[in-house]
Amino acid sequence: MDNSPARGTRDLLPSAVALRDHVLARITEVYHRYGYQRIETPALEDLTRLTGGQGGENEKLIYQVLRRGLPDPVAADTPVADLVDLGLRFDLTVPLTRFYGNNHANLPLPFRSFQFGPVWRAERPQKGRYRQFNQCDIDLVGEPSVLAEVELIEATTEALAAVGLPGGATVRLSDRRFLSALAAASGLDESLWSTFFIGLDKLDKIGWDGVRTELAERGLPTEAVKSALDRIQSLTGLSADKVADALANALPSTEPQPFIEDLATTVGCLDELARTRELRWEFDPTLVRGMGYYTGQIFEIGHPASRSSVAGGGRYDRLIGRSLGRDVPACGFSIGFERIVDLLAERPSRESVAVLFESDVPLARALHVARELRAVGRTAEVLPRSGKIGAQLGRLTAAGHTSLVHLRSGEDQPQERELER
Amino acid sequence: MDNSPARGTRDLLPSAVALRDHVLARITEVYHRYGYQRIETPALEDLTRLTGGQGGENEKLIYQVLRRGLPDPVAADTPVADLVDLGLRFDLTVPLTRFYGNNHANLPLPFRSFQFGPVWRAERPQKGRYRQFNQCDIDLVGEPSVLAEVELIEATTEALAAVGLPGGATVRLSDRRFLSALAAASGLDESLWSTFFIGLDKLDKIGWDGVRTELAERGLPTEAVKSALDRIQSLTGLSADKVADALANALPSTEPQPFIEDLATTVGCLDELARTRELRWEFDPTLVRGMGYYTGQIFEIGHPASRSSVAGGGRYDRLIGRSLGRDVPACGFSIGFERIVDLLAERPSRESVAVLFESDVPLARALHVARELRAVGRTAEVLPRSGKIGAQLGRLTAAGHTSLVHLRSGEDQPQERELER
Repeated sequence: MDNSPARGTRDLLPSAVALRDHVLARITEVYHRYGYQRIETPALEDLTRLTGGQGGENEKLIYQVLRRGLPDPVAADTPVADLVDLGLRFDLTVPLTRFYGNNHANLPLPFRSFQFGPVWRAERPQKGRYRQFNQCDIDLVGEPSVLAEVELIEATTEALAAVGLPGGATVRLSDRRFLSALAAASGLDESLWSTFFIGLDKLDKIGWDGVRTELAERGLPTEAVKSALDRIQSLTGLSADKVADALANALPSTEPQPFIEDLATTVGCLDELARTRELRWEFDPTLVRGMGYYTGQIFEIGHPASRSSVAGGGRYDRLIGRSLGRDVPACGFSIGFERIVDLLAERPSRESVAVLFESDVPLARALHVARELRAVGRTAEVLPRSGKIGAQLGRLTAAGHTSLVHLRSGEDQPQERELER
Repeated sequence: MDNSPARGTRDLLPSAVALRDHVLARITEVYHRYGYQRIETPALEDLTRLTGGQGGENEKLIYQVLRRGLPDPVAADTPVADLVDLGLRFDLTVPLTRFYGNNHANLPLPFRSFQFGPVWRAERPQKGRYRQFNQCDIDLVGEPSVLAEVELIEATTEALAAVGLPGGATVRLSDRRFLSALAAASGLDESLWSTFFIGLDKLDKIGWDGVRTELAERGLPTEAVKSALDRIQSLTGLSADKVADALANALPSTEPQPFIEDLATTVGCLDELARTRELRWEFDPTLVRGMGYYTGQIFEIGHPASRSSVAGGGRYDRLIGRSLGRDVPACGFSIGFERIVDLLAERPSRESVAVLFESDVPLARALHVARELRAVGRTAEVLPRSGKIGAQLGRLTAAGHTSLVHLRSGEDQPQERELER
């Protein structure tokens, strides 16, 4: 009989779970110190909410759930949509906005939310990509200032260091408002901005020439594109004290642009942080991030061990309003939990005493010996002796036991001894 | 806009999650000391597996999940069964047996498994009963002796004490083999046993007369039923040293009944345990437990604060064979996690410093003060001053902050002070 898990899903063995629990515990510890409190929402949400447009391309990957009490057979020509009323969540942001709308009266303002849990996507099976995986998000809801951005970045870089990811993380920072102002200043019509951003987002994969070609093929005016890309290229490698002036120069405007001051504050704080921690930051005008709901600063954390980013987020001041009916400023950061677990080679070690008892030793005595070990906080596993002793000791070592108490009848004071690895 | 969670599901606020995390951490700590290691299986399983007959009545409550890539509209007369290929798990036992079949080559023997996670049942909405809830199971797979039963009971009563459930737990113990032997000795034909057990299982609700009436209505022979119920009533309130003789007397047989010795060992160990812990035990011949897969000793833990049991389990030596192709002895115990959380009134307390900064204080300074508090392991939340100070302090207290650092420009050494509750 085939006992594989359902296609695209996986079983997690004890060593894998121990590593994941270790990573989650370290992240949780850090986020708790910043005042983030964990909430939970159900895995199932009403399908109308999941298909409300917040999820972008992910809405095509929803696992739809049959409603209760359907007739069988289903009436002829029933559209699929009439058979289902629930779906499995595909991220933790859509549930958070509903949660905030439902519970805001019982939450502090600002509210620091921490979420960890599974999400589901009906993806085509692919190596390393699963149909159920965990997301790990913090969100600061109700804080309009860059306190939110700076804190989320500080907390998340600290969490990544705490899980044991080797140093070398780089925070990349940009701003959706900057990107829009830059596109406008370059003479691109507002109707073309999203096409421009989508093209720019591919820079990592296709390079500057590739971006130029793609944007030309999509019919964007060559002069405006050149102007925009030149401005962007002039803005790399800025030091903290240069960001404000450089952005102001790149965006000739008669009006003051408040986001420039915000960005200067953020990079100033990051720069100070980088003096005390192993951390790099850069203003990256090529950073776009896919989701349409971002309204301000956006950020990602890159790591030399990973081709794609290990965390990402940004400000989304107009998303909660869609559920609540009035806008509430919000900013979030999501750690790529599965990616980070894959990057960590070291498994947490286990200490365990095997209490082995011969068949003529009363069970109660073996239980008593184990009880005394556990009473001082140790792990003790009771096991009957069976088969050849050498083979059994080998199996105990392989199972992760680190020492042995061997109970024989007539021996009153059993000695604990280390198991050879 | 209605922001309620999907019907029959719920949002968990930070205080609820903190209590649940606290309970889970205590349970996990105890089970780890006994050598139980956590595994995880996916929420979705192939529907054919979920409907294989292991789940009893729960199989009628499966949330069925639409398969990928269905045409829309669905072709006329499509049976519902052709639209779905996955379902949400309704318990953790069916996934465990599949997991063991899939991974046994990489697991120690015996294998001590610990599972915690959500399950889903499409129940009719009812107060206090949710369509998504958490189960918490330990299972000892591969151990044929009552070491398994005794250890599961000891570990679980210890876990219940560790979560802070007030004392007074009672372990009730019986054995499916005893019930069968008793039914046979009373002259009931084997074809009538399950009807007899189902009736007996209702004793708590309908009393002895109710059971007699129900069994008579279902056509069971009055004399045999009377004989069986008389034997059962004669076996209550036994002390540990009387169990073996009393059972042997109640079951006149020429053959030795090995389960009598097993039961005597279990009650002997429980009796010893009860001398050092606040714990009661009783042999309860009226205990049946619903699931059809039990093959040996069965047990429940009752608590004076709860009408229904707070944990239950038993031996199921022939369930894993259905997945693996060969029988592996196994015994499991499930804690009623949701019920226990409901019984605990006391919420874990939180210690948090609010770092409040006036608008003329640089953000970087507020972040620095918070950073120093966190560096010594404390929780610090940075908040901008806003509105009337008295009202804001009231909100901080309500949000659970226990002390305050108020940053004003020009003050170099901010003092921390307690917030009045």
